[in-house]
Amino acid sequence: MGMKVEQVLHMVGGAGETSYATNSRLQEKAIFETKSIVEEAVREVYKTVLPESMVVADLGCSSGPNTFHVVFEVIDIVDDQSRRLGRSPPEVQFFLNDLPGNDFNSIFQSLEGYEEKLKEEKGGGIPPFYVVGVPGSFYGRLFPARSVHFFHSSYCLMWLSQVPPGVESNTGVPLNEGNIYISETSPPVVVKSYQEQYQRDFTTFLESRFEELSFGGRMVLTFLGRTTERAPSGELCQLWGLLAEALNAMVLEGIVEKEKVDAFNLPFYAPSIEEVKAVIQSVGLFDLDQMQIFKSNWDPLDDSSDDYIYDNFISGENVAKSTRAVIEPVIMRNFGEHILDDLFSRYAKNVAKHLLKEKTKYPVFVIALKTKM
Amino acid sequence: MGMKVEQVLHMVGGAGETSYATNSRLQEKAIFETKSIVEEAVREVYKTVLPESMVVADLGCSSGPNTFHVVFEVIDIVDDQSRRLGRSPPEVQFFLNDLPGNDFNSIFQSLEGYEEKLKEEKGGGIPPFYVVGVPGSFYGRLFPARSVHFFHSSYCLMWLSQVPPGVESNTGVPLNEGNIYISETSPPVVVKSYQEQYQRDFTTFLESRFEELSFGGRMVLTFLGRTTERAPSGELCQLWGLLAEALNAMVLEGIVEKEKVDAFNLPFYAPSIEEVKAVIQSVGLFDLDQMQIFKSNWDPLDDSSDDYIYDNFISGENVAKSTRAVIEPVIMRNFGEHILDDLFSRYAKNVAKHLLKEKTKYPVFVIALKTKM
Repeated sequence: MGMKVEQVLHMVGGAGETSYATNSRLQEKAIFETKSIVEEAVREVYKTVLPESMVVADLGCSSGPNTFHVVFEVIDIVDDQSRRLGRSPPEVQFFLNDLPGNDFNSIFQSLEGYEEKLKEEKGGGIPPFYVVGVPGSFYGRLFPARSVHFFHSSYCLMWLSQVPPGVESNTGVPLNEGNIYISETSPPVVVKSYQEQYQRDFTTFLESRFEELSFGGRMVLTFLGRTTERAPSGELCQLWGLLAEALNAMVLEGIVEKEKVDAFNLPFYAPSIEEVKAVIQSVGLFDLDQMQIFKSNWDPLDDSSDDYIYDNFISGENVAKSTRAVIEPVIMRNFGEHILDDLFSRYAKNVAKHLLKEKTKYPVFVIALKTKM
Repeated sequence: MGMKVEQVLHMVGGAGETSYATNSRLQEKAIFETKSIVEEAVREVYKTVLPESMVVADLGCSSGPNTFHVVFEVIDIVDDQSRRLGRSPPEVQFFLNDLPGNDFNSIFQSLEGYEEKLKEEKGGGIPPFYVVGVPGSFYGRLFPARSVHFFHSSYCLMWLSQVPPGVESNTGVPLNEGNIYISETSPPVVVKSYQEQYQRDFTTFLESRFEELSFGGRMVLTFLGRTTERAPSGELCQLWGLLAEALNAMVLEGIVEKEKVDAFNLPFYAPSIEEVKAVIQSVGLFDLDQMQIFKSNWDPLDDSSDDYIYDNFISGENVAKSTRAVIEPVIMRNFGEHILDDLFSRYAKNVAKHLLKEKTKYPVFVIALKTKM
C-alpha cells in the first residue's frame, strides 16, 4: 500500500464543477442539524471558563463556502452569551485545521471578504476575532497542552489515518479483491483490520484532544456512521460498492487493470453508534454529553425528507459529483487522471439504478463530548 | 492611488529564477548577524516567564528556504536553556504571519520535510512544537491580548501599510513626478507625508504588539534603514532612484506612460536610527534593550565585506533579480506584465554602472525591545 493519507486526501480545490466548493450542500444540512448542539456546547464552555480570550479549533475545515461557518456561528453564540451574562465579549481565536494538501491560500484570501460580510450582518458590534490555519492530521497532536476551549469537526472523522494494514497478506497479496471498502465478500480478516484501524484512530483522536483541551473544554463531532450492526453492511457499503462495481466493469472492458482494483482500498470507516461509544468508554477521558443521529440524502441537492426519488438520473449525477469532489485525488493517484470521467459517469448510472430500488441515506452522527472532571 | 498593500505586496511565489525562494540570500546574512540578539531575547523570555508552552510569532515570514529558520533557531535555544535550568522543555507554538497573498500552501506542504530534517539533526530529542499560519497585516492586531511571548520580524518593517496619502494633491495631482520613492527632487510635502506614514505605521505596530505580548515578552526586529540624516538621501534612495531612472528611460522611448510613473510610489520607508528611537519613545510602551547596525551588500551573492566590486555586471544582475523577487507583483499591477523583463534588464545595467562609482550597501537595523514593567 504505502499511500500516505496526509498527502493524498484533500477536497478538490478551486471552484470548478467538480470542486468541493460547489458540492458542499451536505455540510449545509449538517450545519442546520447540529446548530443547537454546537450552541449548547459553546455556551457551557463559556459559562464554565469565562475566558478573556476563547480558543476554538475546527478540525478538517476544508476550503469552501462552509469553511467560515463555524467562525460565524461561534461568534454569534459568544456575543449573545456575553450579553446575557453582562460581560464584555472575549476575543476569539479560531484555528482552522486540515491536511497540508488543503487549499489554505484560498481560505486566507477569502477571509477579508467574510469578515466584512460578518461586520455588515452584525452591524459592527462583534467580538474581536483572529483566524489562523493549522496544517496537519488530527490523528495526532496539533496544539500545545490545555490551549483549546472548543473543538468542532464536521464530516471528517470517517476518514482513517491510513488504509488498514490487514487488506493485504503478510507477503503483500491483496485480500479484498474486487472491493474498495469492506463488503459482504470481504474476508473477515479485512473487516477486522478496518475495525481495528478505526478503533486505533479514534482512540488517538480522543487522547490527543484531551491533552489539548483546557479545563471545561468541549467538542462537537459530526461524521458519517452506519445504522446496521454488522460492519460489512449498511449505507456506506452500498455507496462504495456501487463505485467498486463501476471499477470492476472497467476491468472487464480492459480499461483498468484488475491488480490495481484489488490492491485499492479506501481509508474510510463508517462506525456504528455502539462502536463509537465503545471507544469513548475504553479511552475513559470524556463524557458523552449528547448524541444525535440524522439522515441525509445521498443526493446533496435533494432537500426532501421523504423516500421519493424525483429524478433518479439527476440524483445519480449529483451523488457522483459530490463523491468525486471528495475522492478524486485518491482515485487519480491510484488509477490515473484518464479514467475519472468514465468512472464517475458509470458510477452515476449505478447510483441511479440503485435509487430506483431504494432511497438509501447517509446516517450522520453528532456527538457532544466534555472532558471528565 | 488606492493600491491596497495587503493585496499586492507579497514575495514572488514558487521556486523559479525570479522567485523569492531563490533570492533570499540577504536574509541569510541577517540570520547570522542577529543570532546572538535573538538568542539573548529568547533566553530572557524563557527565564522570566518559564511557560509550559511558549508562543512565538514571526511577522512577515514569506515563503522560502528561510521561513522555518526562526523555528529551528528558537527550538535550539529553548532546548538548550531548559537543559541549563534543569527543566523539561516547554512545547512551542509558532505562528508564521504574512499578508494573505503569501504562499502559505507551499509553507504548509514543506513543513513535514523540515520537521524530519530537524529531528535528524537534533537526534529526535527536540521539544514538541506546532506550526500554524496567520494571514494579515502586522499594522493592526493579529493575536488575542497577552497571548504571545516572543515576536520576530526580518526584512519587513520598511514596508509601509499604504502609499502615503501626500504623494498627490487634494485634487489628485501627482506630486512626486518622475520618482517612485522620495528623492532630492521630491517636494517637501511628499517627504513629510512619507515620514508621517512611517511614524503612524510603526506606532500602530508597537501598540498592537504591546497588547499581544504576555508579561515578560520581547521582540527582535530586523529591517532596512538609512545612515544619513535627511530623509530624501541615503542608500535606499539611490537603489530606488536607479529603478525610477529605468522607468523614466522607458517613458522617453514611449514604452511606459509618463502618467503611470508620476502616479506610482512605493509603500516603503527606510528610517534613520533617530526616527526609530523617536517613535519607540513617543509610544512609551517598550524599552530598547539592544540595537545593532550592520551593512549588507546590495548584491546578495556577494559575501565580501570590502568595498571591492568583483564583476559589476553580474552584481547588477543579482541586485535586479533580488529586487524583482520582492516588488514584481507591485510593478506588474501598475505597469503590466509586459514591461517586467525590459525594466529589470535596464535596472541591472543602471545598478552595474552605479557600483563602478560606489559599492553602496544596505544599512540593516536590528533592535531588541522589551515591554516596560
